[in-house]
Amino acid sequence: MKPIAGGVCAPEGFQAAGVSAGIKHPDSDKKDCALLCSDRDAAIAGTFTTNLLKAPPIAWTEGVCIRGRGRAIFANSGNANACTGGQGVRDAQETAEAVARGLDVPITEVAVLSTGVIGVFLPMERVLHGVRDSIAALGANGSPDAALAIMTTDTEPKEAALEIPLSQGTVRIGAIAKGSGMIAPNMATMFGLFTTDAALEPELLHALLLECVENSFNCICVDNDMSTSDAVLCMANGAAGLQPIETGTADYDLFKAGLLALCTQMAQWLVRDGEGATKFVEIQVRGAENRDDAKTLARSIAVSQLCKTAFHGEDPNWGRIACALGYAGVSFDINRLQIALDDVEVVHDGLPTEYSEAAAASVMQQPAFTIEVSVGDGPGACAFWTSDLSHDYVSINADYRS
Amino acid sequence: MKPIAGGVCAPEGFQAAGVSAGIKHPDSDKKDCALLCSDRDAAIAGTFTTNLLKAPPIAWTEGVCIRGRGRAIFANSGNANACTGGQGVRDAQETAEAVARGLDVPITEVAVLSTGVIGVFLPMERVLHGVRDSIAALGANGSPDAALAIMTTDTEPKEAALEIPLSQGTVRIGAIAKGSGMIAPNMATMFGLFTTDAALEPELLHALLLECVENSFNCICVDNDMSTSDAVLCMANGAAGLQPIETGTADYDLFKAGLLALCTQMAQWLVRDGEGATKFVEIQVRGAENRDDAKTLARSIAVSQLCKTAFHGEDPNWGRIACALGYAGVSFDINRLQIALDDVEVVHDGLPTEYSEAAAASVMQQPAFTIEVSVGDGPGACAFWTSDLSHDYVSINADYRS
Repeated sequence: MKPIAGGVCAPEGFQAAGVSAGIKHPDSDKKDCALLCSDRDAAIAGTFTTNLLKAPPIAWTEGVCIRGRGRAIFANSGNANACTGGQGVRDAQETAEAVARGLDVPITEVAVLSTGVIGVFLPMERVLHGVRDSIAALGANGSPDAALAIMTTDTEPKEAALEIPLSQGTVRIGAIAKGSGMIAPNMATMFGLFTTDAALEPELLHALLLECVENSFNCICVDNDMSTSDAVLCMANGAAGLQPIETGTADYDLFKAGLLALCTQMAQWLVRDGEGATKFVEIQVRGAENRDDAKTLARSIAVSQLCKTAFHGEDPNWGRIACALGYAGVSFDINRLQIALDDVEVVHDGLPTEYSEAAAASVMQQPAFTIEVSVGDGPGACAFWTSDLSHDYVSINADYRS
Repeated sequence: MKPIAGGVCAPEGFQAAGVSAGIKHPDSDKKDCALLCSDRDAAIAGTFTTNLLKAPPIAWTEGVCIRGRGRAIFANSGNANACTGGQGVRDAQETAEAVARGLDVPITEVAVLSTGVIGVFLPMERVLHGVRDSIAALGANGSPDAALAIMTTDTEPKEAALEIPLSQGTVRIGAIAKGSGMIAPNMATMFGLFTTDAALEPELLHALLLECVENSFNCICVDNDMSTSDAVLCMANGAAGLQPIETGTADYDLFKAGLLALCTQMAQWLVRDGEGATKFVEIQVRGAENRDDAKTLARSIAVSQLCKTAFHGEDPNWGRIACALGYAGVSFDINRLQIALDDVEVVHDGLPTEYSEAAAASVMQQPAFTIEVSVGDGPGACAFWTSDLSHDYVSINADYRS
């Protein structure tokens, strides 16, 4: 596989747009409506927030993904259409209707997403303007605008694409993503939108997406608050002209590796651009009984406020790491606990080593480093990515008022 | 019941001391060794951290509490004796031995606790000095010194006592506590040490203590990192000269109410003095199916970084509160969700009310306020107490280096 330009428009048969409809701010020309669409029938799959208060657009789009055919994804920023009751449900559907009418596709194949302020009804006049303008602006170079239009407090737009050589020819996967966004009063939300010109049945696309998301977007943490609007979607339109990918083939493995690589790239990007983040920390846990245990242990470090402030303070405070492992709820033999900061082993067989404080501190002074943890000789392993907890995080979420 | 002076020495037959042994800093005269002891046989009960990496003194003291008789509690600050392996176990036992020899009591009735830096062996020469000096300093006015000696980053010592009239006469309960302490590299730790001159069998004392701790110390959050050293202990020596308290009596209910009141007072004090705390927030959840569900919902708000930064920013951001309820993992009907900030109802039947932003903001501007949540008409209710997440929290845990 190799990186290519074009983002979500790199795969054949996809167009995108990003326009400003005054949803973020009435007087601003910040882009706030994004549209991705396939010029032909496409499979669609998605994974969604498990928050009980999932927003009406999420419920609508889950229905689209259950049916498995998707021609278009429309996403607005500036308003999450969450905690909006029956009116929110009608607004999500009206948005999908407008997209379907404008593109002349079935409304049942239009996904809609919203992110931004919650508890406020969508300004439908502006949203419908955004639908019209984004349809008019659709183009094969529209990916950067779409990436801009889904941003909230992201400091940079996020898009990428890969080319993957399969047995019969080449396919492409493209993506845009946003995360840790913030328009007060609001919460961090995450979108990952993927396109591919490979051909896949919806069930297979869904299974692949779930597996890749579990090992990428589900292994990141900025502040451990799961939003009402998180979603990862993938459309596959087969425009590369190849036979559908089947389970158990070499092409399946190649495609999966590509999708996972792109999911991981986008997920890590969200952490690097996390609110107030100054550190990118990879946590590698191995030797657990199974992957679930390894993930629970890694996640316990990743979400610990004391660990995250220590990362910010560049303090090789392995006691906080050991403590977070200890309360994770997973049983392991503490006499077999090993902890290393990059290549500096600080705990061996449950006891501190004679490590050099200066060496450990210099690991933490890097913008990115790895914490390696081993808890035994079981087969369970997991990689998890997190940021630090900084003064800027507090400022972004406390000082800027609604 | 009524508040009285004297802290842990308010109950008859208890003495206390707090001395400096140079464990916090070799050159400092900060008190770092506390001793509480009963002049006669006493029941003892305790609840302890569930952290897998519990420190050797905790393991020792659990053994004392299982046997149920306790004459003395010795606690040092400045060093947690955690992640110290077999040497740590020997050091905890040697400390208990020195206390037992000095007081001429059975070693099996001496509880020991340590808080402070982890992964460093106890400086035993200093600790044994601390044991000798604290035994020499024991007195009926020693509670304030003991409260000082267990402090780490607490900004003030915490002691209190209550007098409780029972059917046959009056008993007293006294307490000292410390929490959210920090000596780098370290973690927040919490001690609550209680004495009473009521007479109780160890099993009953244990059951009462568990119930009271579940509704007080187990319902608070500063940063959601559970330490390797958390412990609540209570000694009951019967020195008031009354008959033992029995289950199912009016005296039992009176005593329990008193113990719960004192536990709650000390637990709330830990939150008010939490690292960097500028707000004290009570979260009241009701209408859940059972108390566990109510506690899970309350705790989800209490630990949410986004809620805690909103508290700090005095931002009536109910969307974050609703979001935290939604991902708590407890099922409820969102159409029956009510949220109020003090007396300002912001969400009714799952939808925002027409509340005044100014009124909601003025609630949040108070140093203390209550978030009331109702999720239905079930019997489950829980109160939970939390602080805000401030710049000072980040400074205390990131900027001050080891």
